[in-house]
Amino acid sequence: MSHTPLDATQDVVSLTETICNISSVSGDERALADAIEVLLKAQSHLTVLRDGDAVVASTNLGRSTRVVIAGHIDVVPVANNLPVRRENFAGEEHLWGRGTVDMKGGVAIQLKLACELTSPSVDVTWVFYDHEEVDASLNGLGRLSRNHPSVLNADFAVLCEPTAAVIEGGCNGTMRVEVSASGVKAHSARPWMGKNAIHGLVDVLERLERNQPDVVSVEGLEYRESLNAVLVSGGIATNVIPDLATVTVNYRFAPSKTVQDAEEYLRSFFTGFEVKVVDASAGARPGLDRLAAKEFVDAIGVPARPKYGWTDVARFSALGVPAVNYGPGDPNKAHADDESVPVAQIESCYAGLKAWLSK
Amino acid sequence: MSHTPLDATQDVVSLTETICNISSVSGDERALADAIEVLLKAQSHLTVLRDGDAVVASTNLGRSTRVVIAGHIDVVPVANNLPVRRENFAGEEHLWGRGTVDMKGGVAIQLKLACELTSPSVDVTWVFYDHEEVDASLNGLGRLSRNHPSVLNADFAVLCEPTAAVIEGGCNGTMRVEVSASGVKAHSARPWMGKNAIHGLVDVLERLERNQPDVVSVEGLEYRESLNAVLVSGGIATNVIPDLATVTVNYRFAPSKTVQDAEEYLRSFFTGFEVKVVDASAGARPGLDRLAAKEFVDAIGVPARPKYGWTDVARFSALGVPAVNYGPGDPNKAHADDESVPVAQIESCYAGLKAWLSK
Repeated sequence: MSHTPLDATQDVVSLTETICNISSVSGDERALADAIEVLLKAQSHLTVLRDGDAVVASTNLGRSTRVVIAGHIDVVPVANNLPVRRENFAGEEHLWGRGTVDMKGGVAIQLKLACELTSPSVDVTWVFYDHEEVDASLNGLGRLSRNHPSVLNADFAVLCEPTAAVIEGGCNGTMRVEVSASGVKAHSARPWMGKNAIHGLVDVLERLERNQPDVVSVEGLEYRESLNAVLVSGGIATNVIPDLATVTVNYRFAPSKTVQDAEEYLRSFFTGFEVKVVDASAGARPGLDRLAAKEFVDAIGVPARPKYGWTDVARFSALGVPAVNYGPGDPNKAHADDESVPVAQIESCYAGLKAWLSK
Repeated sequence: MSHTPLDATQDVVSLTETICNISSVSGDERALADAIEVLLKAQSHLTVLRDGDAVVASTNLGRSTRVVIAGHIDVVPVANNLPVRRENFAGEEHLWGRGTVDMKGGVAIQLKLACELTSPSVDVTWVFYDHEEVDASLNGLGRLSRNHPSVLNADFAVLCEPTAAVIEGGCNGTMRVEVSASGVKAHSARPWMGKNAIHGLVDVLERLERNQPDVVSVEGLEYRESLNAVLVSGGIATNVIPDLATVTVNYRFAPSKTVQDAEEYLRSFFTGFEVKVVDASAGARPGLDRLAAKEFVDAIGVPARPKYGWTDVARFSALGVPAVNYGPGDPNKAHADDESVPVAQIESCYAGLKAWLSK
């Protein structure tokens, strides 16, 4: 059991501060998970499930719509940035320190609303999960979906990841391929006896450099795709004409495309070269054509934008649940040593979710 | 002292066989060096110097011309290819096994002629040295030139390295540079926030691919230059737009050019990119305009060809001594597990050198 009880009657900014100060670096989430479990179990309108260091609390009001509102409780390693401080930057009050952006503001909002909203307009499944910041195989949301598949069933999901308090819908898919040029080894004093595989990459890099990635409209959001070399390697020794050179390419593709579409595109794009798929994850549609999503966007009152980075919303998408990100904090500040969030964003996301769930 | 005495009255092919069977992998040349020293010290017309496992024997006849005839006595590791065998390939008798090509045929020729030619037409310094097949800092010829600078003084030098019994003059110089493209890091989901350094290499590779290397005539030999990527690397992680990518380029340049010429050329060739010199070795002029060299070529009666790979002739060139390679065996068979030399090449090089030194 935790030694730091949580109090949902605190204002949401103070509650964020309290939660940040319970250090919960990935793998060490127990104390925070315990405190969350204790608080939620004290709420008679919630049914609580514990799985490892994930805690799930559900209303069961028989509403026609169910939404999942989820957030991870782990943080990346502390960098001399705890306890959190209140700071004034450019005339705006901030919470400064580890977790303020990624994503304990979101967790505090979830926790406070889970306790306060005893009769929300839709049934809500509040999900607090572990191990988001580490290898995907450890991810608590993934584990929950395997151990308790029905618990994530919903019409719509909101992940309270930092979006600077705007709605970011779905996410691009991602695929990595190795594109190789081959040649014939020779001594570099007599290169005309061989064929230089590194020189052979010129055409691969030219195609990448020339390429104008697509912008794809999906349910009203414009997903900007991209295709980039992320690694290059080749050569055996400084006196040998290399017979193999390889570029690792990362393709970020719109959520309207499947992994198979992406692979076909890349094989065609790199015609003439050996292409090996290294890894792939489908994107997530924003689901903004669903009623629950439309009501969410209307209630929040800010425009939805596409998300480019792959996030856990794709786990919901894979389960058939459209999902968006919505939470306080600039995502570019996530993991930074000077991580900090304007308190106004915590308050506006709290108010936005509350308005939606109360209408 | 060696347990295998050497006998210079053996025919040159049998002597090659005997020398091959005294294993002398780099670092383990003592037994062979001892045997060579004992044999040469028994010759009253020679003055013998021992330095580590190098042995130098000189005539001192007061001739107006002095030549160095040199060869290394070490071999690359044995690969189940000793003792040597006599084999018939394509109707031609061969010696098969480690060292037959690189370069105990040459060593046997040197040793037999050093003993037989008690009154050669020029003074001769016979050099047998260690550690040629390993790091250049260990090279016995380099050590001799530091410990006994005057011992390599000569008008002309012949290295009995394998050339398939033709004369290969001088050698190209070699320079390695790292050519780098820089960029700006970004998450690969939002590449438009950064600048891709790997894509930035396209211009480097294009210049290499487009390049038509020069052929440079030096003292009547045509040196073919070359410019090749030998290594390429770049990238930090598969989700980061790389901010640095580097190609290692090897330039082989004609012996009429200095190291400084080579560097200026590469800096100009790669204008717009960072160029860092990693290593450089000047080439060696063939010296075919010198009288001693002309007499050598005339006596051997085969045309001289340029040498492309960097060899120890460049050590002589650095001392102001023009040098050529001339020895039995196909250099492409050097270091091969099936190393083998036609015995006719051993005999013809023996006869060629003997004719030159006897005229």
